[in-house]
Amino acid sequence: MTRLHEFDIIQRFFTKAVKNSERFPLGVGDDAALIAAPAGQELATSIDTILAGTHFPEGSDPYDIGHKSLAVSLSDLAAMGAEPAAVLLAMTLPEANEKWLAEFASGFFNLAEEFEVELIGGNMTRGHLSISTVVYGWVPAGKAIRRSGAKPNDRIYVTGNVGDAGFALQQIQQQQEPLEPEFQQRFFHPYPQIKAGLALRSIATAAIDVSDGLAADLSKLLTASRVGGRIQTNQLPISDLLRNQTSLEQAITLALTGGEDYELCFTAPADSQSVINKMLADLDCPVHAIGHITAEPGLKIFDADGKEVDIPQSGYQHF
Amino acid sequence: MTRLHEFDIIQRFFTKAVKNSERFPLGVGDDAALIAAPAGQELATSIDTILAGTHFPEGSDPYDIGHKSLAVSLSDLAAMGAEPAAVLLAMTLPEANEKWLAEFASGFFNLAEEFEVELIGGNMTRGHLSISTVVYGWVPAGKAIRRSGAKPNDRIYVTGNVGDAGFALQQIQQQQEPLEPEFQQRFFHPYPQIKAGLALRSIATAAIDVSDGLAADLSKLLTASRVGGRIQTNQLPISDLLRNQTSLEQAITLALTGGEDYELCFTAPADSQSVINKMLADLDCPVHAIGHITAEPGLKIFDADGKEVDIPQSGYQHF
Repeated sequence: MTRLHEFDIIQRFFTKAVKNSERFPLGVGDDAALIAAPAGQELATSIDTILAGTHFPEGSDPYDIGHKSLAVSLSDLAAMGAEPAAVLLAMTLPEANEKWLAEFASGFFNLAEEFEVELIGGNMTRGHLSISTVVYGWVPAGKAIRRSGAKPNDRIYVTGNVGDAGFALQQIQQQQEPLEPEFQQRFFHPYPQIKAGLALRSIATAAIDVSDGLAADLSKLLTASRVGGRIQTNQLPISDLLRNQTSLEQAITLALTGGEDYELCFTAPADSQSVINKMLADLDCPVHAIGHITAEPGLKIFDADGKEVDIPQSGYQHF
Repeated sequence: MTRLHEFDIIQRFFTKAVKNSERFPLGVGDDAALIAAPAGQELATSIDTILAGTHFPEGSDPYDIGHKSLAVSLSDLAAMGAEPAAVLLAMTLPEANEKWLAEFASGFFNLAEEFEVELIGGNMTRGHLSISTVVYGWVPAGKAIRRSGAKPNDRIYVTGNVGDAGFALQQIQQQQEPLEPEFQQRFFHPYPQIKAGLALRSIATAAIDVSDGLAADLSKLLTASRVGGRIQTNQLPISDLLRNQTSLEQAITLALTGGEDYELCFTAPADSQSVINKMLADLDCPVHAIGHITAEPGLKIFDADGKEVDIPQSGYQHF
């Protein structure tokens, strides 16, 4: 293994000329990056950290880690209805392995280029593998989708499927190898729902991305909005893939609590359902109404027979 | 020890109402924070990570860690001549210990309040202790001090003293306990030279903060500016404190390569020396001219007799 200095690593793998120099007058290579926000736009910004052994197994494919490190942060911008613009990348690495770095950079930049996100700075240090990404996106002033805008009688929606990534994580944790490629994909290559977030900016009353599990994340949205919600387990978007691997009961549990889905959970007025269906169908983004908002606080979950079910656990908790 | 959930920790220790709601329409508690930059201002932004065992000893005082985690990032804004405005805090913690968190928060917020920096978001995960801070500051469009503006014949300056923190680090690494309070202070409580950076915005041609060692950081500035530099060891600002602890030769080596100083190294036209001295004296910020910029690339260091000296090592390297 060739040992590289921090400066060399940044030069070789993580320095790209900034394309939009009007918006980003200064990128990688100074004490700080400079951002010139467009007039009338607010800057949405968020940080996410993924750690080896906690968020992905030690020894995971570096391409996958590169993809996922950026995807999880972009998902936060999606939930705000923000347009991705730039990213800072802070890496803690146990060693400087050229092959590993090249593959990581490939996974990271492939996703960055898809969403026209520019790497404008970062940091590198030595230690147990951990990646933090800080994203920056534009949103017209006052138009960001917050967690706090849900109103009684709004419908509750979720994009895509939920539970697949949670199942994959369970398999990984139980070391049931090899993980099937579809689940590998669902766990390591979450696709940030940026386009859906932008489309929903005009219509959603509240949104959150599903990272800790649908029940836990929806509960956060309800708390922030000072409302409650009712959802039905038979309306949860569970993939055939997952249904074929496990019992219905287990699939529902994973859909509610598995986490790592990086789908959007959002609310919108009841009369906008057909508009939402049309708008997201045009984006090839599946969407399902799973319940509605209530004035009474708390999340209640009902089965197909209308019987209330307990949430098996309150979602992924770091502590 | 009481175990706390991530959500509780954020609520209890790290949620403060945003004071400047015009600039920060949305703070802690959503998928992303929102920043509305003032008209005509660019946003300077940077991330820094400090890790237990690498940047500070395991078991360090949490107050000190809280202070230093923010100070090192603010130092980057100082080097840009940016006015600090906000911060994101991403913590990786081995456990959720209330007393530890309360003391960390105290060190962090005491410094944040001194510079009117608002905590607008963050992230919390479980693992080996590591703190990343992302800072945001304003700078009038086009007025940031870059690394790349130094010109031949400019004077080279450094604020404060250099070498004390490097000596402290050496003592810590050699486990020479107890560390004297003054060195403890110099290592754990670096004071970001924000006021000096703001004052220098109108006059410095280039600047960098000294984190990896004066010789290494000045070399980065020279490379970015495509120039060279000559400095003299007898002009280095070495504290009496350090001189009393070690040989002159060792003190010079630490001043050049010790790192962790978080002082500013900057360049300015030769005829501005008296203005700079007056300006920084008014801020109670010591400053010393240590050499000058040359057209010929590379850093050359001379002793009091005009004899060229080798740089003992090329500064702190993570890999």
